[in-house]
Amino acid sequence: MATTESRAAAATDLQELGRRHLWLHFSRMGGYDDQHQIPIITRGEGCYVWDDKGNKYFDGLSALFCVNIGHGRHDVAQAGADQAKELGFITNWSYAHPQAITLAARIANLAPGDLNRVFFTSGGAESVESAIKLARQFFKLTGKANKTKVIAREVAYHGTTLGALSATGITDLRTPFEPLAPAGVHVPNTNLYRLPHHMQPEDLAETIKHKIEFEGPDTVAAVILEPVQNAGGCFTPPDGYFQRVREICDEYDVLLISDEVICSWGRLGEFFGCQRLGYQPDIITTAKGITSAYAPMGAMIVSDRLAEPFFEEHNSFLHGFTFGGHPIACAVSHANIDVFENENLLDHVRTNEPVFRDMMESLRDIPIVGDVRGMGYFQAVELVKDRDTKATFDEEESEWLLRGFLSGELYRRGLICRADDRGDPVIQLAPPLITTAEQFGDIHDILRPVLEEASRRLGLAG
Amino acid sequence: MATTESRAAAATDLQELGRRHLWLHFSRMGGYDDQHQIPIITRGEGCYVWDDKGNKYFDGLSALFCVNIGHGRHDVAQAGADQAKELGFITNWSYAHPQAITLAARIANLAPGDLNRVFFTSGGAESVESAIKLARQFFKLTGKANKTKVIAREVAYHGTTLGALSATGITDLRTPFEPLAPAGVHVPNTNLYRLPHHMQPEDLAETIKHKIEFEGPDTVAAVILEPVQNAGGCFTPPDGYFQRVREICDEYDVLLISDEVICSWGRLGEFFGCQRLGYQPDIITTAKGITSAYAPMGAMIVSDRLAEPFFEEHNSFLHGFTFGGHPIACAVSHANIDVFENENLLDHVRTNEPVFRDMMESLRDIPIVGDVRGMGYFQAVELVKDRDTKATFDEEESEWLLRGFLSGELYRRGLICRADDRGDPVIQLAPPLITTAEQFGDIHDILRPVLEEASRRLGLAG
Repeated sequence: MATTESRAAAATDLQELGRRHLWLHFSRMGGYDDQHQIPIITRGEGCYVWDDKGNKYFDGLSALFCVNIGHGRHDVAQAGADQAKELGFITNWSYAHPQAITLAARIANLAPGDLNRVFFTSGGAESVESAIKLARQFFKLTGKANKTKVIAREVAYHGTTLGALSATGITDLRTPFEPLAPAGVHVPNTNLYRLPHHMQPEDLAETIKHKIEFEGPDTVAAVILEPVQNAGGCFTPPDGYFQRVREICDEYDVLLISDEVICSWGRLGEFFGCQRLGYQPDIITTAKGITSAYAPMGAMIVSDRLAEPFFEEHNSFLHGFTFGGHPIACAVSHANIDVFENENLLDHVRTNEPVFRDMMESLRDIPIVGDVRGMGYFQAVELVKDRDTKATFDEEESEWLLRGFLSGELYRRGLICRADDRGDPVIQLAPPLITTAEQFGDIHDILRPVLEEASRRLGLAG
Repeated sequence: MATTESRAAAATDLQELGRRHLWLHFSRMGGYDDQHQIPIITRGEGCYVWDDKGNKYFDGLSALFCVNIGHGRHDVAQAGADQAKELGFITNWSYAHPQAITLAARIANLAPGDLNRVFFTSGGAESVESAIKLARQFFKLTGKANKTKVIAREVAYHGTTLGALSATGITDLRTPFEPLAPAGVHVPNTNLYRLPHHMQPEDLAETIKHKIEFEGPDTVAAVILEPVQNAGGCFTPPDGYFQRVREICDEYDVLLISDEVICSWGRLGEFFGCQRLGYQPDIITTAKGITSAYAPMGAMIVSDRLAEPFFEEHNSFLHGFTFGGHPIACAVSHANIDVFENENLLDHVRTNEPVFRDMMESLRDIPIVGDVRGMGYFQAVELVKDRDTKATFDEEESEWLLRGFLSGELYRRGLICRADDRGDPVIQLAPPLITTAEQFGDIHDILRPVLEEASRRLGLAG
């Protein structure tokens, strides 16, 4: 069959066509020109991707925390195409099919405690929206209709739809779209490096108790937390944080949502982040690694206790998405979990996490490196002007450091990672779970000279 | 490689596992038991699907308005798996890849007027959220920060995330999740069958003008309308409606969003519904048929005029989704559009629409059939107690008619369609675009006796 005219016309000049027609997400589209080209990725294999000019990059961010099993697993994508030989699509909207059923059961088996009910979505934002809506309808069904608010943490990212965005704690991502759904109220995150002088680590969970009391327990439906907070740069919880939050939630009849869009599927060395940190949430929200992004998919995993009122007589969760439980995505997720199990990915992460961490710690002698933190295959360094005072950069310096120098220089040398300042400036790494000890050495050999050069250019003392 | 324990354990009893672990969307999960089983679909081919007991059904709803090219096109799914041999995933979040670029250009070529900028999502709700957010940021960038509201129509469905849901005009879907994002305000829909006595069809567009003036033009960002409104049962616009709405939007500097999640990709016989109805929106939101659901995908298509302020210097649309522009989904969408073009699907719809409509009109002699309406491969009958008075059913009668009798009886006889009462009771058909004249005859032969039987049981006069 002839390739059609419209398809042929579309293939003439990728850079030009891209700038003209493709609106990239979270991107300054006006900044692209012949000198500053759109990065066009054409191939992926293992931990590496290649661009349209043939340059090779180590994908230190797993394509935005997604490709946990690595690039190039076309066997996993093929499992989806094979499913389409039987059934390409049916919605979960009042229909089931074998792949969705068996995958739901499999995920329930992997999830901790009584998290036995799986509601499929097509991504993280849909999962978080589903969790907020479930929490609200749960309390309306159980006679506490005023419990609607969701407590989240400053600088945390929970998605961009207007409900999820109200939980997201990044002011700059919220302001252009106000007014948001009146749901999110915010407490301090667990940035232990910049803990205010008057606070102890054990005070952090108490800020949630205080916020519940301030808002009024009768108005608070849920607390939503990532096991390790991504935005801000891999904020780990202090010891006992989640255990205390669980107690507080129980005390005030508030649900605990563990937002594991990033921290599940091996990122912290367990299938779910809450398993690594030893707490039991009421809901887990997930996406990304559930398929290692070989198909768009997400899920909300709900406890039997929460599900109960929805399963009584004529009640129903009045919510859904057309593509929920997509048969192809379910088949891909099955194949993805097969890789985890057959290739012992969790063991690999647990074995090599110390290698990764030691490599990051070894950068501490570089003047610009203020903090090293993280867990599992999810680590960050925070960049500072002065390690003694922890002085951070002003907006102009940060703009130069992250967007003017680091992002470009690391990319030029073949490393994709995140140089970000949604909190203070950090460099984040979340490589594919197959990354080896030797490859952590390769990452080091790119990071060190670039961070040293940044230190020199900023005139920082050694 | 051995199938793993967790996978094997999951495959023992689909019914039982489904009820235990898979949370279906918009479904009364407590209603399933050994007598009322979850429908489990296992195979699809052309216009037909089969369940796990071997029963065959005509899929008169295209798996929720999705499978426009029909079931069983595993060649289209295979295009996705083939793409994964090169690149399985990279995000559109500051990266591009050839499939996303060429698909964006191709869609821009197909879309009317200056709708030249394509922002990819993973489904309809994400597309609508993106449109609401774009409208708000557009006005904040252009000095009209107070323009935040979105005018939508009563009973219209625009998605379930808390922003999209605020546009959705179905009270029962909103109440359990209040408070929603403060965005949606609602006007009457174009239900011409039940137009109030004091109104003329040409007054309907004026209700939008009135609402803009009532809310205050400085507070209104956009009007969001489906070309033919789905919920309520295929409400078509009166002549000149959209042309007048366009004038009103221009007069008050309000954006016109054409929500074509259902009405694009051939459903109305053109690639986009606005082309059939002859109006030029500022934004088109789409999903479903963009891949015929062989991959989860959606898109927002934006005019050059709206895009302009976002492309100036350091500005950016501060919004995104990880799976936006998924390479596999883009490859599947290309293959899907190839099918449209190579197999002349639009011509087929335009040729056979009269056959479909005549079949539906032929049901008018059945006492329960009050109205027949729709456009393209998207038609409905409204069911009434009395054709002369247009008296509708009370809640109990409607419950028996739709859920107690029609849905089950039509399904038992092998027809999947929608028997719905989100407005007044209707039966809706939106079959795959490959449906033939002969197959419309088959649909008739199932519909007629069931509707006649419903009339008899309700004691309606002939």
